[in-house]
Amino acid sequence: MKKNIVLFLILFLVVQFYVIAQPQLQEQPVPVVSPEVKQDNSVVFRLRAPEAKSVQLTGTMTPGHSKLDMVKNEDGIFEITIGPFDSDYHGYNFIVDGIITLDPNNNIVVRDGSYYENRLIIPGKLTDVYDVKDVPHGKLTAVWYPSPTFGMQRRMLVYTPYEYENSTKSYPVLYLLHGGGGDEEAWVSQGHANYILDNLIAQGQVEPTIVVIPNGSIGQQAAPNDRSNSYSAKVDRAIDMRSMYSGKYEESIANDIIPYVEKNYRVIKDANHRALAGLSMGGLHVLNTFMFHPDMFGYINVMSSGWFTTDEKMYADGDKRLSEIAMTLNKTVKCLRFTQGGPDDIAYNNGKEMLKVFDKNKIKYEFSEMPGGHSWNVWRQDLKDFVPRMFN
Amino acid sequence: MKKNIVLFLILFLVVQFYVIAQPQLQEQPVPVVSPEVKQDNSVVFRLRAPEAKSVQLTGTMTPGHSKLDMVKNEDGIFEITIGPFDSDYHGYNFIVDGIITLDPNNNIVVRDGSYYENRLIIPGKLTDVYDVKDVPHGKLTAVWYPSPTFGMQRRMLVYTPYEYENSTKSYPVLYLLHGGGGDEEAWVSQGHANYILDNLIAQGQVEPTIVVIPNGSIGQQAAPNDRSNSYSAKVDRAIDMRSMYSGKYEESIANDIIPYVEKNYRVIKDANHRALAGLSMGGLHVLNTFMFHPDMFGYINVMSSGWFTTDEKMYADGDKRLSEIAMTLNKTVKCLRFTQGGPDDIAYNNGKEMLKVFDKNKIKYEFSEMPGGHSWNVWRQDLKDFVPRMFN
Repeated sequence: MKKNIVLFLILFLVVQFYVIAQPQLQEQPVPVVSPEVKQDNSVVFRLRAPEAKSVQLTGTMTPGHSKLDMVKNEDGIFEITIGPFDSDYHGYNFIVDGIITLDPNNNIVVRDGSYYENRLIIPGKLTDVYDVKDVPHGKLTAVWYPSPTFGMQRRMLVYTPYEYENSTKSYPVLYLLHGGGGDEEAWVSQGHANYILDNLIAQGQVEPTIVVIPNGSIGQQAAPNDRSNSYSAKVDRAIDMRSMYSGKYEESIANDIIPYVEKNYRVIKDANHRALAGLSMGGLHVLNTFMFHPDMFGYINVMSSGWFTTDEKMYADGDKRLSEIAMTLNKTVKCLRFTQGGPDDIAYNNGKEMLKVFDKNKIKYEFSEMPGGHSWNVWRQDLKDFVPRMFN
Repeated sequence: MKKNIVLFLILFLVVQFYVIAQPQLQEQPVPVVSPEVKQDNSVVFRLRAPEAKSVQLTGTMTPGHSKLDMVKNEDGIFEITIGPFDSDYHGYNFIVDGIITLDPNNNIVVRDGSYYENRLIIPGKLTDVYDVKDVPHGKLTAVWYPSPTFGMQRRMLVYTPYEYENSTKSYPVLYLLHGGGGDEEAWVSQGHANYILDNLIAQGQVEPTIVVIPNGSIGQQAAPNDRSNSYSAKVDRAIDMRSMYSGKYEESIANDIIPYVEKNYRVIKDANHRALAGLSMGGLHVLNTFMFHPDMFGYINVMSSGWFTTDEKMYADGDKRLSEIAMTLNKTVKCLRFTQGGPDDIAYNNGKEMLKVFDKNKIKYEFSEMPGGHSWNVWRQDLKDFVPRMFN
């Protein structure tokens, strides 16, 4: 074998040739570095765009997701320095003459629904929990399950902890729901939920847990690249709006998803070993699901969600239902947690008002908030903070 | 339960609220439709960009991946109509004042390495094979495996056919390699390899097969969003260039990947049930691997690849090695297939010249070409044509 290493060495040029021959649509004399995180955690963003009139930066680290003008230098490179920032993952885009673009020099692109952005990593204590570290990794599997409720196959992601494969044990399950416009990949792409679990399990802070991440947009079977060719974005939206208020998705969680998981995985089948969490629209799915199945989940986190404050009938109906289930809920749920991204969160007031109805019905819960608004910065942290609370 | 449907109905407004409240950075008075595939399979591309000076279209359906100028109308919408085209998946981008962008009205974005583009679907016979259809779907799992060769964990995707979970049978395996600059997600995102297998298995054209899709870029552990925070694109490139010619990746296939798969999956462990295919750089990985393990694979497809035509020593060494293994290869390999994307394929001449050395050594092989150049249009078709040839 060793003598043949020579052949490998010679193949270097060939390989280099094919790498170089990849499409190079962006003619860039010298690549610019972007984003550049400085020693003090301030960040320089750069884009070579000699033909552009204006380039702006927008993202979760610009105040209110505002657009900041970048300044063009004599080489046609637009630049801006902002920060410093605390450790976190941020999402950003450039806006070139009014059109949203990705940063061609940053190959980390994350997605929530049809919303693509680059990831900025400010390294530190927080991102350490989100990081892909040298710990045992669970498996993440795209699974198609039958949904009798909707008469279709639907796609979900299932995280099984590292030890699952080589064990005969049964495991608790977290059902984790995305927000409006999103799909089953949001909690992985934006949320790094699988790596958060890997890290906290490795640290002994979370017991090995299965995480089920379904698609909560009813008109969709799956994420965009995993749908039928005939499935246009237009159809998508039309069906979604119709279906969102059918209540069927919550039925599907109880009647399709949980039975499928409990049949096909080694799972502990009681409320003490079922957790449910979701953000924004997924938070409403969580609310509805536990309100109609108050004996089903032992650990619940509603993130950035709440009833519509202007709708009095909603509050009256919710009040009535909560009065019916208060005793069951208080007995079953070990941790009912409501979290918000502070006053900037679009769901902040809704959530606060809704919790008054929970108070009135003497339902035990915890409330916490952190700055960050209605954003993945908050939801990733919520997940990190919630999962060690499960199954204790 | 039924009386509570009322509550669900009321929640409509809330859900709508959270959907609408998603970031709307692209202010568009009326959404434009793009791409619009007409009855005759010509296609209209549109982008609303009132502030832009110029918008161009480029993609696998523009001749030579050229840039075609789009025309601005009085509403600030740039538009172009091209085609008609035969059924296929194409990839395209807009170029706005010199900067590559995605089409904000097309939510299918596919990726090969750091190259993101929108998918255009021209429906018909060919895309029917690539489609996500209502057939039993296999599972697709992201797996971290130990690589003793590189002293690190590495990520691969493993497709298990639908019946795998509820069977005790052992299965054949296809090892499927990506090209230069790519990663383990390219054959899924661009290639739809899992859906091609689903469809051809459902039609009885391919026997249920496990497909293993590793990451062939040695400096990488995984795709961009699945790497350590500390792993910058810069480091990436530097390590890749050094490692590509070490020959270690091919060792890793034989010593890390195949042993891991054969230990952890129900797999038939002989050459008659092992297939190997790869494109471009992955084609060279395929070549090297079978030349050093001529008794390991029964079915082989080298796509868009070949030795470097200007390097005489490479040909001399290859000639010598092929003369040593010709008998073994001819006995072991039931199907050795070389495919190219026609004269426009950057590897076309390399491949043709290299095959003269195979001819000289009387090694049995098949050669086929199709128009399309060095592109996923060709490689998806190659996969579709190769997999029914396996394991017969």
